[in-house]
Amino acid sequence: MPVHHATFTIHTRSQGLHEITDQLEREVARSGVTSGVATVFCRHTSASLVIMENADPSARADLEAWLNRLVPERDPHFTHTLEGPDDMPSHIKTALTRTSETVPLKNGRLQLGTWQGVYLWEHRRAPHTREILLTVLGE
Amino acid sequence: MPVHHATFTIHTRSQGLHEITDQLEREVARSGVTSGVATVFCRHTSASLVIMENADPSARADLEAWLNRLVPERDPHFTHTLEGPDDMPSHIKTALTRTSETVPLKNGRLQLGTWQGVYLWEHRRAPHTREILLTVLGE
Amino acid sequence: MPVHHATFTIHTRSQGLHEITDQLEREVARSGVTSGVATVFCRHTSASLVIMENADPSARADLEAWLNRLVPERDPHFTHTLEGPDDMPSHIKTALTRTSETVPLKNGRLQLGTWQGVYLWEHRRAPHTREILLTVLGE
Repeated sequence: MPVHHATFTIHTRSQGLHEITDQLEREVARSGVTSGVATVFCRHTSASLVIMENADPSARADLEAWLNRLVPERDPHFTHTLEGPDDMPSHIKTALTRTSETVPLKNGRLQLGTWQGVYLWEHRRAPHTREILLTVLGE
Repeated sequence: MPVHHATFTIHTRSQGLHEITDQLEREVARSGVTSGVATVFCRHTSASLVIMENADPSARADLEAWLNRLVPERDPHFTHTLEGPDDMPSHIKTALTRTSETVPLKNGRLQLGTWQGVYLWEHRRAPHTREILLTVLGE
Repeated sequence: MPVHHATFTIHTRSQGLHEITDQLEREVARSGVTSGVATVFCRHTSASLVIMENADPSARADLEAWLNRLVPERDPHFTHTLEGPDDMPSHIKTALTRTSETVPLKNGRLQLGTWQGVYLWEHRRAPHTREILLTVLGE
């Protein structure tokens, strides 16, 4: 059974959802694996993954604004504040969303639903360089 | 190494947790794979997965009611409101719970803990047709 | 393709994050699998997994305190209270974090980011015996 690894380096500009579905699909096609699973992994603790509606951008904007209200910056209880006011909220938001997702792969394609897109969620305000790993396993 | 795929179509009646453990176990047995992993994947962004206590229904009722209080409908900040007041909360609840879960498989059985059940969590109020994918990978 | 299973029994003393990265790495090395994925699975519904910053303990302390404020004990809405005031919050915290994580494995090592550690998160106050499963799949 073949194993195929790829690394995606993504330069984020600021906080927000960054769609990576097309990059993943292209790499899955390149892998030659037609049936199995694809694991997506985010190598960070202040950025995360989420599989979210990819049709209407207002759903993503509302999701992001809601999470910002749930985990506000400058919470007086925070002690981990040396790396800036958006750092501790970023760790909490990562814990509440996803670090890995495993998606079935059939007929050479990710079996996402019609409205599902895979997103890297940058939780920091400043630009960052992020690494997403894809491992394709199957036959 | 064999790869076995199955699709479960589930008709939900309303918001709530819908146990799918038995269906998954039966399909795992049918797959003939005795050692490996089983990936469960929910193809939606307004329904999700969770592995929760399957003994006392009051734990699931409290969990659902708590999440409804955390993410109330008709939040005046929401702009994505065209699909009804329960739509945007459904996307948020999906982001906070799970789209994929991977469960070890040994001796032909899912290695869930004694009190663990796998649940499809319908977040919409109206009946929906949901698709859950199972991919079994191993030997 | 080899499949390697291991069970880790962890005795927790009280609520909090318990790092298991080193144990996982040692078992991955023992498995002989050099390329593939490692699935970590928590067999409980009142303890969970999270991949969090492993450098500064203040980030983990703030994360834990924040989740305790989000899901306080003795919420008057709870009906599932027979197993103690910390039981229902434990189920909710499990639903909000992770039961399974799948980490890419390359050159015989977990491909975690520089600051990532894998943690068992005990949500109960009393000591518990917890089982974490590791399944390594690859070549």
